[in-house]
Amino acid sequence: MLEPTPQVLAFDVFGTVVDWHGSIVREVRAAYPQVDADGFALAWREGYRPAMARVARGELGWTRIDDLHRLILDDIAPRFGLGDLGEDERAHLNRVWHRLDPWPDVVAALHRLRTRFTLCTLSNGNIGLLADMAKRAGLPWDCILSAEVFRAYKPDPATYLGVASTFDLQPSRVMLVAAHHDDLEGARACGLRTAYIERPLEFGAARPKDVSPRAGNDLHCRDFAELADKLGA
Amino acid sequence: MLEPTPQVLAFDVFGTVVDWHGSIVREVRAAYPQVDADGFALAWREGYRPAMARVARGELGWTRIDDLHRLILDDIAPRFGLGDLGEDERAHLNRVWHRLDPWPDVVAALHRLRTRFTLCTLSNGNIGLLADMAKRAGLPWDCILSAEVFRAYKPDPATYLGVASTFDLQPSRVMLVAAHHDDLEGARACGLRTAYIERPLEFGAARPKDVSPRAGNDLHCRDFAELADKLGA
Repeated sequence: MLEPTPQVLAFDVFGTVVDWHGSIVREVRAAYPQVDADGFALAWREGYRPAMARVARGELGWTRIDDLHRLILDDIAPRFGLGDLGEDERAHLNRVWHRLDPWPDVVAALHRLRTRFTLCTLSNGNIGLLADMAKRAGLPWDCILSAEVFRAYKPDPATYLGVASTFDLQPSRVMLVAAHHDDLEGARACGLRTAYIERPLEFGAARPKDVSPRAGNDLHCRDFAELADKLGA
Repeated sequence: MLEPTPQVLAFDVFGTVVDWHGSIVREVRAAYPQVDADGFALAWREGYRPAMARVARGELGWTRIDDLHRLILDDIAPRFGLGDLGEDERAHLNRVWHRLDPWPDVVAALHRLRTRFTLCTLSNGNIGLLADMAKRAGLPWDCILSAEVFRAYKPDPATYLGVASTFDLQPSRVMLVAAHHDDLEGARACGLRTAYIERPLEFGAARPKDVSPRAGNDLHCRDFAELADKLGA
């Protein structure tokens, strides 16, 4: 077992907890059958890092992910034949990020983990988005933490250290759970423990992700059930 | 029914959801039988507003309630024969605010309300305190919001409007639930709906509180069960 035992597990959300690609593809296919849903989901997600970088560089003031998603949506909509969407439809589509479905292993494993650990999110998603998602999907978080709380996006150290500070813990008592190596590296540099979760289908079945283990993580898990097993929950 | 129907219920916590006086008295009596537990609990709570006012005036930088509680504890401890408490014992006692028990009507009613509304805290307590309390007491919040998120204490409008903004709602779609008229007045001034909850024993059985209805609140409820009844949950 890990020493010291982590007390708080902080979860990355997009890709790690929820299947953003599959969820967006399903909803877009149902609502707009003419659209290349796979390409649209990828393009929307690809706009995300550059948009956050504009905030980090100070070109944009602090901006919630809901608003960044909307900027990107407005930008890419014409390319996917969605340029004529009205305001209500556009606002509804933008909130698809509140309606993402969890990977099938997630909910049961979180209930197991919750008996032994404090479970929180640590996502660049805004608080309202994460709360709506949790309510809809039945994600039993003890606490929703977000870039919005710390006014900084991951991988800014203020986010990882912010979780430890929120619970008045040494960073080593917090474990970040994520499907992305850069996120885990950022956490590790701040002294957090790290667990990598394989999500080979994050970008869809046509684009399997390399999920081979890398050095440095405390745990490497196929899914959340294996995480719960390894943490003795 | 209220029009428009509130979508988010934001709950004051100390006194409204949890019985701070009774919980502190019970714990102090068990650990330190020689102490005037009733007087101690009241003195600790009385230090709270002046301490927050120091932050609001800028005499202290932004300070979590855990740290304000500790400042007050260190200040009043000698008066109650607790001046010799060591650091570990003092830190443990300070966290009694994380271990407050809910009033007996709370948990069942929150589960009813949760099926129809998004439930969040809106407390001057810090996030870690509120998360620990919720986990221990089984309070099924959808989201923990706190002065710490908005970097302002109630009744600063930033807190009430912050809840509406977090969920991208008009203020009238948010209802504050509280046992304190000044808090409800602050919320009402920002356009929120308000529900007053009678907590006649907030300051102990020896000091019953006047809980007679006042004009201005949308709802006046004996307890959370009546709140759930009146909101059709």
